[in-house]
Amino acid sequence: MQNFTFYNPTQIEFGKAKEQEIGKHLHVNGVKKVLLTYGSDRIKKDGLFDTVVASLKAEGIAFVEFGGIQSNPLLSKVYEGVALAKKEEVDGLLAVGGGSVLDSTKAIAAGALYEGDVWDFFIGKAAPSVALPIFDIITLAATGSEMNMGGVVTNEATKEKFAIQSPLLYPKVSIINPKLQMSVSKEYLVYSASDIIAHSIEGYFTASVQPKIISRQVEAVIKTVIETTEKLLENPNDYEARGEFAWAATCALNGTTYVGTSGFSYPNHMIEHVLSALYDVPHGAGLSVVMPAWMKWYKSKNKAQFERFAKEIFGLDSADEGIKALESWFNKIGTPTKLSQFDLDKSNFEEIIKVGLGNATYFGVGSIYTQKVFEEILTNAL
Amino acid sequence: MQNFTFYNPTQIEFGKAKEQEIGKHLHVNGVKKVLLTYGSDRIKKDGLFDTVVASLKAEGIAFVEFGGIQSNPLLSKVYEGVALAKKEEVDGLLAVGGGSVLDSTKAIAAGALYEGDVWDFFIGKAAPSVALPIFDIITLAATGSEMNMGGVVTNEATKEKFAIQSPLLYPKVSIINPKLQMSVSKEYLVYSASDIIAHSIEGYFTASVQPKIISRQVEAVIKTVIETTEKLLENPNDYEARGEFAWAATCALNGTTYVGTSGFSYPNHMIEHVLSALYDVPHGAGLSVVMPAWMKWYKSKNKAQFERFAKEIFGLDSADEGIKALESWFNKIGTPTKLSQFDLDKSNFEEIIKVGLGNATYFGVGSIYTQKVFEEILTNAL
Repeated sequence: MQNFTFYNPTQIEFGKAKEQEIGKHLHVNGVKKVLLTYGSDRIKKDGLFDTVVASLKAEGIAFVEFGGIQSNPLLSKVYEGVALAKKEEVDGLLAVGGGSVLDSTKAIAAGALYEGDVWDFFIGKAAPSVALPIFDIITLAATGSEMNMGGVVTNEATKEKFAIQSPLLYPKVSIINPKLQMSVSKEYLVYSASDIIAHSIEGYFTASVQPKIISRQVEAVIKTVIETTEKLLENPNDYEARGEFAWAATCALNGTTYVGTSGFSYPNHMIEHVLSALYDVPHGAGLSVVMPAWMKWYKSKNKAQFERFAKEIFGLDSADEGIKALESWFNKIGTPTKLSQFDLDKSNFEEIIKVGLGNATYFGVGSIYTQKVFEEILTNAL
Repeated sequence: MQNFTFYNPTQIEFGKAKEQEIGKHLHVNGVKKVLLTYGSDRIKKDGLFDTVVASLKAEGIAFVEFGGIQSNPLLSKVYEGVALAKKEEVDGLLAVGGGSVLDSTKAIAAGALYEGDVWDFFIGKAAPSVALPIFDIITLAATGSEMNMGGVVTNEATKEKFAIQSPLLYPKVSIINPKLQMSVSKEYLVYSASDIIAHSIEGYFTASVQPKIISRQVEAVIKTVIETTEKLLENPNDYEARGEFAWAATCALNGTTYVGTSGFSYPNHMIEHVLSALYDVPHGAGLSVVMPAWMKWYKSKNKAQFERFAKEIFGLDSADEGIKALESWFNKIGTPTKLSQFDLDKSNFEEIIKVGLGNATYFGVGSIYTQKVFEEILTNAL
């Protein structure tokens, strides 16, 4: 095992009715005035907004609304949030929504106490030295943002989909109530499944050192995602399945499945971020296209682990069969596996690769992901 | 899944040479004078003590030594430590040793800032409202104490082996260097394997609600323990195996394998604590005697999970075969499976059961673990 530091101080409050306690958690943490961030007006229609407001009022916590954050969240919106947080002098942030809302909120938390351009944190020009405390009620299980220190935002001017990371950005308290996730559409459920599997396999396949205990823990997550996705497609209101799915999402990216590994990279995310940034495809949908294509290209570089994957996840004997089984499963649940499903073809390669090469440099894998490699992987996705 | 709160703020520093940084971690956390707790003089002979002292001196941190803490640690020794911590007005504690040293140190951390009797915290008469910060360098992988908020101490006057628990007792920083654990005897290695498996199976078998993702994560731990114990018996200096074994120990009791479960109890620990308290048998050795005996009695109460255990861990088809396989494996690695190996027989039942019934009440399972049940389980261990 490689040397590592593991530190994850986020308090998870998981279960039914937990959102009603959000005011108490803010109060315990000394927050007096909060920026309440969210996406669409769905939370107003389904009553969650009212529940949150009642909980804040019960504790005498003031709030300022900041809605309209979209999927594949944009830097321009983060700038707006930073300006509002500064103007209103909030002392905390409460995200109510999915990964995009929370990721944007993390950027606002760091930007609100920074004189310069918050994008500096994404391009490594500066690191946050202080941030407002972050709280969240997560309504979509996918990104794991509720228990990690990162956030991803797209700079629409440059088409860069980059990440901010800092231990200051671990949420103080994250509320995961599986009931609140029952209204997620089947479409977004399967995209989320794809996203969680992507978080699981990046390190699993690319790490130069991969402890077996970590492989086993990753497999626990993937098996759970496969099993519970199928249950939820049958019955979206299956609380147990919804709960296990949500917790699998958290475990996939809270650090526990990456400790002791080394030399890993995030090639599937690196490639998918191009698709999201250029064509605004849903992140999970892009990932289920990229993964099988990438795996077909990468398999010979870590054959034993691909064989292990085939065996442990699908009970199959070869690397090829394992990849094929995953692709078939994506098809079965209804998440895309081909570029054509986004109306993309060979004529898009040039622009994809142009942004992709920049991403590869940003992800620290520029020497591996050359023009030729991009072409091969994209061809696998035709 | 049951509602749960998960919060574990311990910073883990895992890997080679990490112990050299202990002074820095104390400094960052504002500690100026530390009580340095340990067990035998082994750490002085093997150079670890000198390394620690050099690291403290480099940061200008004063220290007071408190050695001689034994396995199955005693309340009298904790009292001594509390008195010394008060007298010397230390502002932090550094445990260098195994679970017994760290558990005692947790009790001292709470007792040092308490006017009353520290045993109050063990019997539920009081709860810690404040505690000194705890740091540790863990030299034996077994108890998981390095990443949890509990500690177990024996009151030699009453023969009670009870626990203290408080979120204030999470270590601030725990250092796990697998190299420092290479000198552990084969005897204590196999007792530790037994202890880790016991931590894993208590919830796994007894929980009334057991999410499958948690079962899978528990199985990841158990499989890793079995595999790495065998490797370490062959070659105690196998760094990878030592590392995975150590991390499995941490994962087994850091809360991650208990979230979302409900209604679980710790019957194997409850019974074993009697053996340790009465006869001073090593905790892990006692557990490998208790577990198969308890499993034979309990199996019909959760048949599906026992069948799952047999299948997932040993590739076998029935509950009975799984239990037998675990017992055989304990025999193979050389940890006891029968009371006779401690020179105990039926004539000891009366005194065991007398203390055991008290423990059952303390563990909240008094209505289940009656005289008759104890007799049946103990008979299985003859």
